[in-house]
Amino acid sequence: MLSNDLTDMLQIDYPIIQAPMAGGITTPELVSSVSEQGALGSIGAGYMTPKSLHQHIRDVRKRTSNPFSVNVFVPNEFNVSIEEVERVANHLRSISKSLGVKGNGRSLPTPASMKRNFEEQIHVILEEKVPICSFTFGVPAKEVVAKLKKENVILMGTATTVNEAILLENKGMDMIIIQGSEAGGHRGHFLAEREQSMIGLISLIPQVADRVTVPVIAAGGIMDARGLVAARYLGASAVQMGTAFLTCAESGAHPTHKEAILYANEDHIVLTNAFSGKWARGIKNTFIDDMKDYTSILPFPVQNTLTSAIRKASADQHNPAYMSLWTGQSPRLATDLSAARFIQQLVQEVKDITR
Amino acid sequence: MLSNDLTDMLQIDYPIIQAPMAGGITTPELVSSVSEQGALGSIGAGYMTPKSLHQHIRDVRKRTSNPFSVNVFVPNEFNVSIEEVERVANHLRSISKSLGVKGNGRSLPTPASMKRNFEEQIHVILEEKVPICSFTFGVPAKEVVAKLKKENVILMGTATTVNEAILLENKGMDMIIIQGSEAGGHRGHFLAEREQSMIGLISLIPQVADRVTVPVIAAGGIMDARGLVAARYLGASAVQMGTAFLTCAESGAHPTHKEAILYANEDHIVLTNAFSGKWARGIKNTFIDDMKDYTSILPFPVQNTLTSAIRKASADQHNPAYMSLWTGQSPRLATDLSAARFIQQLVQEVKDITR
Repeated sequence: MLSNDLTDMLQIDYPIIQAPMAGGITTPELVSSVSEQGALGSIGAGYMTPKSLHQHIRDVRKRTSNPFSVNVFVPNEFNVSIEEVERVANHLRSISKSLGVKGNGRSLPTPASMKRNFEEQIHVILEEKVPICSFTFGVPAKEVVAKLKKENVILMGTATTVNEAILLENKGMDMIIIQGSEAGGHRGHFLAEREQSMIGLISLIPQVADRVTVPVIAAGGIMDARGLVAARYLGASAVQMGTAFLTCAESGAHPTHKEAILYANEDHIVLTNAFSGKWARGIKNTFIDDMKDYTSILPFPVQNTLTSAIRKASADQHNPAYMSLWTGQSPRLATDLSAARFIQQLVQEVKDITR
Repeated sequence: MLSNDLTDMLQIDYPIIQAPMAGGITTPELVSSVSEQGALGSIGAGYMTPKSLHQHIRDVRKRTSNPFSVNVFVPNEFNVSIEEVERVANHLRSISKSLGVKGNGRSLPTPASMKRNFEEQIHVILEEKVPICSFTFGVPAKEVVAKLKKENVILMGTATTVNEAILLENKGMDMIIIQGSEAGGHRGHFLAEREQSMIGLISLIPQVADRVTVPVIAAGGIMDARGLVAARYLGASAVQMGTAFLTCAESGAHPTHKEAILYANEDHIVLTNAFSGKWARGIKNTFIDDMKDYTSILPFPVQNTLTSAIRKASADQHNPAYMSLWTGQSPRLATDLSAARFIQQLVQEVKDITR
């Protein structure tokens, strides 16, 4: 139950991966503490500059010599006009005003700037000899895969459907993370339409496991030993847990975000693309309600940049109304333990229930 | 793994329930064959007249003396005007014509006629001393619960969220069927909004199991031993399987429907309310595409009645284009075994993987 091909390949004790949540959640304290316990910590580098990624990797290495992973976002093509940006910026202006935000101040991303940042992130991963690299939002370019494989970096791709998983295996991924519809935060579909990508893990795991030969990692809604054991029997070699680690003491999630999850139930959880331009699962709040009928949302990551000052101001004011309060579908199972204690307890419970 | 409080209460050998799929699928052959194997067969009586239900029960009893259940739909209030009905009927006319349908011929249901039919169904269940009765689409009236409990009928309610499960337990249900987002056919939510009711079983089962004291039955996307064992570890006492039995030899599902499932994958599956007025999961076809942007769909069961001649004509012509091809999210796991063989194989696999 607790060891298999995957734990051997990754050189970890337990088939437990802390999800690489982007946006400041995966502090070096969280990542290193997870890896120190024999699970796999992951740096969510999606939005990081190369410099910041360097620093994070070094800070993790100061705290642990165990393996950890870095996650990056495969850059996507997008196209927005100045007029479209102006329209959304205007729409957001009254919210900005009410929060006292003085202009956004951030330059807008372009496909070229995203691609450059991605390539620099890969460069850092190689330079720092990070042992494991995971990808979200698509298939990395052939040259990127080749470069990383040459240095024996273990590669993980993220799929939401059987067909996406098959493609990722064909493109050289050593393991496939399958994201169930239960997952919090951004949806990772890249071939499938959103609706068709919303597959519950109890359906998705066995159907993927039947069709790929590499190890499968199940992500979405798994928060305790019951979920881990279930995922293993369904055909996954490991689980990747996001929300379960987000509320842990070492996580860099804002206290208001942690608290919102600890008090949430299923009636509060929705999918929205209003924060970033990509669909994501989180707790309903004023911003999501305000944007519900707004149809001109811009593609990722432009929308994300346009809302960033609002999200930051809301967080600074400890006001959940305009923050992106990502969560999976199991908030009732959230705890506020330390990551170390959480993993110890989880492992013990797995042993107890499978005895 | 294979026996527990629930199997004791229901007097069955295995914690496997054949889902009560309405609309002619649960033939006496299917129901009796499932019960004969030591699982629980279920008559999907939702759309049945009392007379037809009588006949089904007797036909099942001729074939098995083992327990079986009957499922009924809790009637809902609805209100439609003649004008609204005319508008939809007009919209459907070109489809009817293309299929050669000569008028619908069925009288429209009213809240009063639905309530009367429901009460007569309950009367048949009592008269025939059916041991187990399950409900979909809400909470049955207090008097109905009292009458059935007085005769020791075991009652199962269907929930899609933790709060719905808690309510059903409070209203006297002896067991709770929890329908995950993976499930095929009609969504059973009655308190929650549709979006909030779409919870994957890996999230839903443990959260419900923590909050109710009666046994929990997991339904949705479970098609094999892996799903059954996973559901048990997550906290369910049993599984209810629909699609897995729909494609079995004894099922009354149309051959075109069975074939569509056997060839489907996740890219073909959608939610639609166009067939019946309630949201349901099935395989995308011409009818669903045609109705996609049509916003005047009538409430259940009026819409269902208005589309019935079209669905029937489409089936008579072995044309999948206008049939309701319900399926859960695991079509790749479907088989065309006999129900008896399917259950034997399932039980053996459960023993093998948990040895």
